[in-house]
Amino acid sequence: MGRPNKGQLPDAPGPAIILARPQLGENIGMVARAMLNCGLGDLRLVAPRDGWPNPKAERAASGADSVLAAARVFDTVAEAAADLERLLATTARDRDLVQRVLSPRRAAADLRSWAEAGQSCGVLFGAERNGLKNDELMLADALLTFPLNPAFSSLNLSQAVLLVAYEWSQAGIETPDERLVVNISKPATKTELDEFLARLEGELDAAGFFRVPEKRATMARNIRALFARAAPTAQEVSTLHGVVSELIGKRKRGKA
Amino acid sequence: MGRPNKGQLPDAPGPAIILARPQLGENIGMVARAMLNCGLGDLRLVAPRDGWPNPKAERAASGADSVLAAARVFDTVAEAAADLERLLATTARDRDLVQRVLSPRRAAADLRSWAEAGQSCGVLFGAERNGLKNDELMLADALLTFPLNPAFSSLNLSQAVLLVAYEWSQAGIETPDERLVVNISKPATKTELDEFLARLEGELDAAGFFRVPEKRATMARNIRALFARAAPTAQEVSTLHGVVSELIGKRKRGKA
Repeated sequence: MGRPNKGQLPDAPGPAIILARPQLGENIGMVARAMLNCGLGDLRLVAPRDGWPNPKAERAASGADSVLAAARVFDTVAEAAADLERLLATTARDRDLVQRVLSPRRAAADLRSWAEAGQSCGVLFGAERNGLKNDELMLADALLTFPLNPAFSSLNLSQAVLLVAYEWSQAGIETPDERLVVNISKPATKTELDEFLARLEGELDAAGFFRVPEKRATMARNIRALFARAAPTAQEVSTLHGVVSELIGKRKRGKA
Repeated sequence: MGRPNKGQLPDAPGPAIILARPQLGENIGMVARAMLNCGLGDLRLVAPRDGWPNPKAERAASGADSVLAAARVFDTVAEAAADLERLLATTARDRDLVQRVLSPRRAAADLRSWAEAGQSCGVLFGAERNGLKNDELMLADALLTFPLNPAFSSLNLSQAVLLVAYEWSQAGIETPDERLVVNISKPATKTELDEFLARLEGELDAAGFFRVPEKRATMARNIRALFARAAPTAQEVSTLHGVVSELIGKRKRGKA
């Protein structure tokens, strides 16, 4: 997905991401990368199995070095979360706890509203194999589960962090869901498009394309719908004129 | 995130995930895992660098063996997408193409409505370093970009697939707000559209349309983008063939 670019820590770090007893350096590195992809910068590690720093994490971070360099290491989850006012804990399965359970999207909305109220927030992720202990879950204000394929719900650690970080980032931006990249040219006006379509119909009439008179209107309408759906730019309408000119122009030259 | 559980292929495979020239087996394995997490089962590999099957992919799949076992290998993107009626292509940056650009969320909504209309769909992902070639992007009905941290937008391949697959799965939980009305005719397959475009280019070549050789590739690409954006039905492609035939046929008759 393109060449890694140098990534600085974001101005506002966003919710803390806390990894409890992570095992694989590769996963820690990919977590850092996913965080920075989504504008998060506060990584906290609880008793990483292979110590810290970890060269495998650095390789897997693919340029998110700033997040790794700023990461802090703690002995327990309680210490890692000590300064936070709001904590969500991720869990793969329902527990024997009477607790709110949020989807990532709903969790992101809650995190946004807490952050806007000036509260410090974090999300806690268990180790690759064993997840979180019950007394760690008890520290959380609510649980977060991923509504995925019930027959195969085991998410990679960095994938779980990405989904939470992604939903956080989407909840905060107003990117239009769809846009048309128009680098070169303005959209054609309706007049420009209509002139082209009228010309095309005229040429097709002249060529005997509309053999069945009763079907002429329907066929012409279908051709118009096709080009209208493409929403051509002014430049493209000009190109289309050129296409038609060449196709018939060669005929005229052939004739002459 | 809990112990991997044995994952069977989902009953409905969902949109195809096409990886163009993937390099790392680990990424292919993590793609398979992310797909099955989100209920997708149709993985297509275009010229995987290290051959296929790949033991590293199997290790990284963490139980998503069913997806790897069902994966199909192709030589080119065009072959991998040949049977699809709708194709989205992911890209990390804007291109000089006039093309719809969708967020993952909007893309998921479109994929859902296409699938509900019985259309075969796929999403195309470029290689880790180099992304997709322009002529591969041209096969797509629309582009998909990830609205992430502009200072660090390079997503790991499996993370990119996860975000698309996750949005697809989330979009299925609720009824879509909007459906695409598809009457009478099925969308053209990529092969049908490509055959038409190749024919049109051939006729334009013969007519001397591409006067400036250096501009030929760009001009041909722009024409392709225009027709791809219109997402013609099979019936419309047939009409377009008729239009071209008449325009040049008249020339040929004129000549005779």
